[in-house]
Amino acid sequence: MRHLLSINQFTKNDILNLVSQTAAIKASFENYSDKLAGKIVATLFFEPSTRTRLSFESATLRLGARVIGFADAMTTSTKKGESLEDTIKIVNGFADLIVMRHFETGAAERAAAVSQIPIINGGDGSGEHPTQALLDMFTIYEENSKLKVQSSKPQLKTQNLENLRIAFVGDLKYGRTAHSLSQGLAHFNPTYYFISPLTLRLPDEIKQKLTAQNIKYQELETWNKIAGDVDILYMTRVQKERFADLKEYERVKDNFILNKQTESLFRQNCLFMHPLPRVCEIDPSVDNDPRAIYFKQAHNGVWMRMALMMKFLKHET
Amino acid sequence: MRHLLSINQFTKNDILNLVSQTAAIKASFENYSDKLAGKIVATLFFEPSTRTRLSFESATLRLGARVIGFADAMTTSTKKGESLEDTIKIVNGFADLIVMRHFETGAAERAAAVSQIPIINGGDGSGEHPTQALLDMFTIYEENSKLKVQSSKPQLKTQNLENLRIAFVGDLKYGRTAHSLSQGLAHFNPTYYFISPLTLRLPDEIKQKLTAQNIKYQELETWNKIAGDVDILYMTRVQKERFADLKEYERVKDNFILNKQTESLFRQNCLFMHPLPRVCEIDPSVDNDPRAIYFKQAHNGVWMRMALMMKFLKHET
Amino acid sequence: MRHLLSINQFTKNDILNLVSQTAAIKASFENYSDKLAGKIVATLFFEPSTRTRLSFESATLRLGARVIGFADAMTTSTKKGESLEDTIKIVNGFADLIVMRHFETGAAERAAAVSQIPIINGGDGSGEHPTQALLDMFTIYEENSKLKVQSSKPQLKTQNLENLRIAFVGDLKYGRTAHSLSQGLAHFNPTYYFISPLTLRLPDEIKQKLTAQNIKYQELETWNKIAGDVDILYMTRVQKERFADLKEYERVKDNFILNKQTESLFRQNCLFMHPLPRVCEIDPSVDNDPRAIYFKQAHNGVWMRMALMMKFLKHET
Repeated sequence: MRHLLSINQFTKNDILNLVSQTAAIKASFENYSDKLAGKIVATLFFEPSTRTRLSFESATLRLGARVIGFADAMTTSTKKGESLEDTIKIVNGFADLIVMRHFETGAAERAAAVSQIPIINGGDGSGEHPTQALLDMFTIYEENSKLKVQSSKPQLKTQNLENLRIAFVGDLKYGRTAHSLSQGLAHFNPTYYFISPLTLRLPDEIKQKLTAQNIKYQELETWNKIAGDVDILYMTRVQKERFADLKEYERVKDNFILNKQTESLFRQNCLFMHPLPRVCEIDPSVDNDPRAIYFKQAHNGVWMRMALMMKFLKHET
Repeated sequence: MRHLLSINQFTKNDILNLVSQTAAIKASFENYSDKLAGKIVATLFFEPSTRTRLSFESATLRLGARVIGFADAMTTSTKKGESLEDTIKIVNGFADLIVMRHFETGAAERAAAVSQIPIINGGDGSGEHPTQALLDMFTIYEENSKLKVQSSKPQLKTQNLENLRIAFVGDLKYGRTAHSLSQGLAHFNPTYYFISPLTLRLPDEIKQKLTAQNIKYQELETWNKIAGDVDILYMTRVQKERFADLKEYERVKDNFILNKQTESLFRQNCLFMHPLPRVCEIDPSVDNDPRAIYFKQAHNGVWMRMALMMKFLKHET
Repeated sequence: MRHLLSINQFTKNDILNLVSQTAAIKASFENYSDKLAGKIVATLFFEPSTRTRLSFESATLRLGARVIGFADAMTTSTKKGESLEDTIKIVNGFADLIVMRHFETGAAERAAAVSQIPIINGGDGSGEHPTQALLDMFTIYEENSKLKVQSSKPQLKTQNLENLRIAFVGDLKYGRTAHSLSQGLAHFNPTYYFISPLTLRLPDEIKQKLTAQNIKYQELETWNKIAGDVDILYMTRVQKERFADLKEYERVKDNFILNKQTESLFRQNCLFMHPLPRVCEIDPSVDNDPRAIYFKQAHNGVWMRMALMMKFLKHET
């Protein structure tokens, strides 16, 4: 467990420990302001990012560590043809931990194969985005805790992530956040609805994993039949460019847009989530709905990433 | 006064307090090295910048705070179509204050409308550049103080900004620095000469404001008649690209160039200012003239911006 | 000695002092963590860089100082036509030391001519890269010390850099690292072999210097005759784009590629060095050869640059 590459490397217990640790950090982040003093974190972003890079950098600074790195690989020797492996081996001498995003699936694994310092995968192509899945789970846990406190039902600690019915909506073929989160929640007896155009369905490889894990799931083309049943609506971007036929895009896109009309299909305590950025798939008029928690979700990235960097830099939970 | 969007939100007294505070910081900046310890400032630059971004970052560090951000929006989710509003709401969770520059007039106001943390406008299109106006006023105050100390005349504190005759020269239509400074100095009974090609005159909206404020001003096409009278020559860039007709550009440009010849038209205690960058409108041979204070002016940006960030982060002057 | 522009400004004694200082820093870098507290270093990179920029930034942070700057001049007023001189004069007000890289030979000298704060040349066109030469010399010294300790021969301190036979290989015309290192080692009675295509030979100006310094050197088109004799093989990139005739490139390139076959031509205690990035001139299969020290070499950049910034910011060695 030297590197954070995939959500699959965490046990159920690991995930619950990280969620607790994140809650403790969020409650009193000032107490962590020198936990990583003297450390240097390199953020190597080969692909654009706002949330992941800036929240990792904010988390680094809130732990008293410092940042070096790049947001545009064209300002680096990558432009001169340097390999990813060489770049990683070089930065090993300049930093204590590397956070990287790359446009190629598997890039984080290639980096880890040559790195003496921890690699944290901040998204690799259409592969994984494990830190997003972890902050998503923390957000679900936290929001469900509030709902349950309001309803005053006694509960076991893990119940906040257990037995959820979750609709993943959008581009499930290339969307790495859905790939990672559906694996992360697999420890908690979920029911999944995968709602996407036929051409953008979840990869077979992930469906085979879910089957092996005995996870109940259905693939659908619209949310009409299940909207009233789900606890979480996890929206992702549907990119026009993914469609060979734009008519097909026009035909299906309205099935994947949350707005003032469609939000009424969902239950009053359903949570609306999105890894962001969004383009048109959630109308801004939904933002004020109390079920819309996607900005809170993004903000939780700082606290979860503080927990993760402490874990991977100090080799403890 | 949660956000700094326009120079018009400051009273005369606000401006004088900021000028005093800036003078105090400049005199002993080491004493401020932990005033904002633990804070994170986000610098979000959607348009190129050297002075504004680097001086805000230097000011942030000199106050003990830390920086996250971007200098190129194409490295962020803006490239994926994320709205300015969403970017601002996201960064709200990662930082304590946002400094932003944007190519669209009104962008800072749009940002402030959705932000829970202070927004400081570092230039929005052809709109405003209020922190530039404030550092300009500090620079005028400081330089005039030196001149008056040398001449040993007793004076009231505000006299250093009062009753000035100022020539604004260049592209006054799109030049946001002239827009903001002419409003900032309007509290101090100035006389303005707006010297520009006919096609690049000050916008009507600003002229109407000046008229309502009872400010004396003239619009001119050359500085020939007034050069000997002005206390301050405030130069700005005239961009060739602004002219539909390049012959027109060639015809007028020499009216707006300060060089070894034209500098002799101005008085010995006139101050030559420029928000920079310059291209050809001030010849480098002028730099050694004691009246040329544009580099000092740029350097003062650090001290004024320290004062501003303290004010907006601590809600005090 | 206010600026670091050229390797030629260092005496033999200066170099040995810097090498000692670097060894001391490397042995206990934690002891230097607040040596430059309160200082701001500006890294101004007008040309892509990974190693130089990130190692300077890491070095800055490990000394307790802070960084501002840019990795892409197109995000700055350079895009609006600002001159290098103006940019430098502006940054003088925002930082305590400037590290710069520029695509034009002589740019660092132009910057120094107008700067009140120290300039460190991080590479200027095909001119110089003095900090690379210094870290190269530290690396040679350190590796030779290990070899000699193993062979238990007593030695004078300077012997680790004395009397070396060095093959410089690749593009010696435009390769600034070879230019600087061949001058830096000239104090230590070296023998040089310059191995390059005819069209990419060392500039006459440098050969004339070497002749005046009484340095023994030969120019060759292949390493075949001297491979078995050299103590150091210093590889550099041969860029395809440098050849007018691609057939010529194809004909010569195999003379300049180190791989599992060609590595056997070199002695068991020869050191394989490269300033990196490499493209195809060293095959990754060579990386595990104990003679391959190019990653160690890059990592040593942090320690040498810490020594240099301390020297130039505090005006002491």
